[in-house]
Amino acid sequence: MSETISPLAPKKYPKMPAIEGVRIATAEAGIKYKNRTDLLAMVFDEGTAVAGVFTRSKCPSAPVDFCRENLSGGKARVLVVNSGNANAFTGKKGRETTSMTGKAAAAAAGCTPGEVFQASTGVIGEPLDANRFSHLLAGMVKDAKAEVWTEAAKAIMTTDTYPKVATATVKLGDVDVTINGIAKGAGMIAPDMATMLSFIATDAPIEASALQALLSKGVAPTFNSVTVDSDTSTSDTLLLFATGAAAKRGAPKITDAKDARLAQFKRALNKILKNLALQVVRDGEGARKQVEVTVTGAKSARSAKRIALSIANSPLVKTAVAGEDANWGRVVMAVGKSGEPADRDRLSIWFGDNRLAVDGERDPNYSEQETSAYMKRDDISIRADIGIGRGKATVWTCDLTKEYVAINGDYRS
Amino acid sequence: MSETISPLAPKKYPKMPAIEGVRIATAEAGIKYKNRTDLLAMVFDEGTAVAGVFTRSKCPSAPVDFCRENLSGGKARVLVVNSGNANAFTGKKGRETTSMTGKAAAAAAGCTPGEVFQASTGVIGEPLDANRFSHLLAGMVKDAKAEVWTEAAKAIMTTDTYPKVATATVKLGDVDVTINGIAKGAGMIAPDMATMLSFIATDAPIEASALQALLSKGVAPTFNSVTVDSDTSTSDTLLLFATGAAAKRGAPKITDAKDARLAQFKRALNKILKNLALQVVRDGEGARKQVEVTVTGAKSARSAKRIALSIANSPLVKTAVAGEDANWGRVVMAVGKSGEPADRDRLSIWFGDNRLAVDGERDPNYSEQETSAYMKRDDISIRADIGIGRGKATVWTCDLTKEYVAINGDYRS
Repeated sequence: MSETISPLAPKKYPKMPAIEGVRIATAEAGIKYKNRTDLLAMVFDEGTAVAGVFTRSKCPSAPVDFCRENLSGGKARVLVVNSGNANAFTGKKGRETTSMTGKAAAAAAGCTPGEVFQASTGVIGEPLDANRFSHLLAGMVKDAKAEVWTEAAKAIMTTDTYPKVATATVKLGDVDVTINGIAKGAGMIAPDMATMLSFIATDAPIEASALQALLSKGVAPTFNSVTVDSDTSTSDTLLLFATGAAAKRGAPKITDAKDARLAQFKRALNKILKNLALQVVRDGEGARKQVEVTVTGAKSARSAKRIALSIANSPLVKTAVAGEDANWGRVVMAVGKSGEPADRDRLSIWFGDNRLAVDGERDPNYSEQETSAYMKRDDISIRADIGIGRGKATVWTCDLTKEYVAINGDYRS
Repeated sequence: MSETISPLAPKKYPKMPAIEGVRIATAEAGIKYKNRTDLLAMVFDEGTAVAGVFTRSKCPSAPVDFCRENLSGGKARVLVVNSGNANAFTGKKGRETTSMTGKAAAAAAGCTPGEVFQASTGVIGEPLDANRFSHLLAGMVKDAKAEVWTEAAKAIMTTDTYPKVATATVKLGDVDVTINGIAKGAGMIAPDMATMLSFIATDAPIEASALQALLSKGVAPTFNSVTVDSDTSTSDTLLLFATGAAAKRGAPKITDAKDARLAQFKRALNKILKNLALQVVRDGEGARKQVEVTVTGAKSARSAKRIALSIANSPLVKTAVAGEDANWGRVVMAVGKSGEPADRDRLSIWFGDNRLAVDGERDPNYSEQETSAYMKRDDISIRADIGIGRGKATVWTCDLTKEYVAINGDYRS
């Protein structure tokens, strides 16, 4: 947790309501951090369905392996998350830790270890001793409360400078259902996949397979379209829990993601995913500006996304934004290096509404003064039109500042 | 040109001998920089063969297009290089500039425009007016001298903090032949391709097709294995000229790159390519440390190189090196994110001779103290053994410092 809050932090936080069927507890286990909470338990009523997406890293953490295995059961009763140690690349010890934690959490919640989910975030490669926190779980489950979502978001922070929460209440059938989400960043953020930790819960009665379909589709234009530094974590985990408690109030039970009654719910879920993903970007390590990169006119949507990520991950583009320099030449460079089909002489580039380049050269009407003024904003939008097709994609990133280097040159020690 | 010379600059520079058949001139054209040379002309005797490799960018600069076209002729009489403006993404105007420069240089050297080669380095997207410097070419060609190679290296610098030169004299047959090379970096350095500007000349009599084969093979483990920031320039150009003047002294004429008499020459050429490539890395923007990344035990050599580049391009690995932190967890992350075949539980990692991780977890015998002492060196070596095959590759990069951000947040303005 940094001393200085990101200048891009939300101006105000929503009041997080309870989700029927979810109770939350946090604790100070002292795993690495002192004088702050670093352990989260989220307890779910029986019948809670779960869906998840994980890092595509070939070297995932032990908790990611644990969750992937349990996900096939589709049922969740308790989630345990710690910050300060990622339990990644910890070999056999790492698996023993997730196994012990799974058993302790199951005993505390009165369920099987197959209904436990876990995530760990922090340093890689340090053994995480389950004994440091597993004894706390029984008390936490017992004392868990409904309305402490923001506390939950705080307990999972590492280099985050603010807790990330989002909520929405929408109709499912004629009944109000609520979706709450929390997330943490803030480095090693890159597609593909969830790119950090995020936990979302709803009281809507949605079966696991339908829930999974909603989540898998929802992450593509949200969590899988943000990048801070192109570095994919070993631990990225996004879990979505549905307690089904709203069924008692008459909400229809949903078994198919294509069910027309889900329209409002889908929109709200996708909005929360995007909201949380952008909060992660806006708290990117050292971030001073959010950058939205849109590519249009590419050969395909897939090609557009690759070009957009090439721009968003370019250190030279990101440092230019940090320096408030509308250096569109570096955008050309990033389009060129993506390896995707492009025609230099059809390329156009905008910063905000300012077109800087058109048909492969500097726009004759481009105003350096207006663009310089634009670059002073907190939110910068870059658009590149490739001019050869109809493929389109948008991704989000932040600038690359000296603070990023300071934070990461100095994290472990 | 920076005020502060990189701490990794060579402690001493070689005395650059003349290459028979090559004459050099530099001038202050004032294209962007003041009070320094920014224009280079290299004049070659009739019969000079040329080979080249260029950026793989889909948006190459106008001079790259110009050189690619002329390369098929295989003959060179004059090379014109300017710094301060890359003549990239300058559309029709850019092509007019290379065409005008080609004609002016041809008139000056008494050759056809097809025997002219050009390169430009500096800001992208600003039109480059050939009239700013083309009138100087006739005088430069006339006054060109043999022994000013270091002056040539200075004229092509942009954010470089020192000129990059290398030389070797070896036997071809029974005759001494000499190879001289110059290069410039220092940002936008990444494979694949030459990753900057470099010009090499020899008096050895080697035919263009053999010369091209030597160069294409030589760049893979040298210039194509260095990366500063993963950003591939629009302008990367590496040209190799062979005047053939040593034939008069009895050097054998070489028509095939496989000719056994080339053994010494090949070794010397490859050494110069590596020497110049590493000088580029050691002058990477803001670099304080050189990092050699070796991957062994990968599924294939190609896979090893991809993993090595994933490590070398990771901002988190590079900032850790800057912070003198042996954060091997980030190496695990970078192996994982490469997408290449890997088995977490067989992975081993070394910083220098210090094995930090073995069989997928922290090495029980790892000494934090010794490794910390190692990280204070200027030259850091990272090795990752993937443990699944025999593929091997080495790449070089530098650390990512606050100075990199400062230089690039502030370059254009």
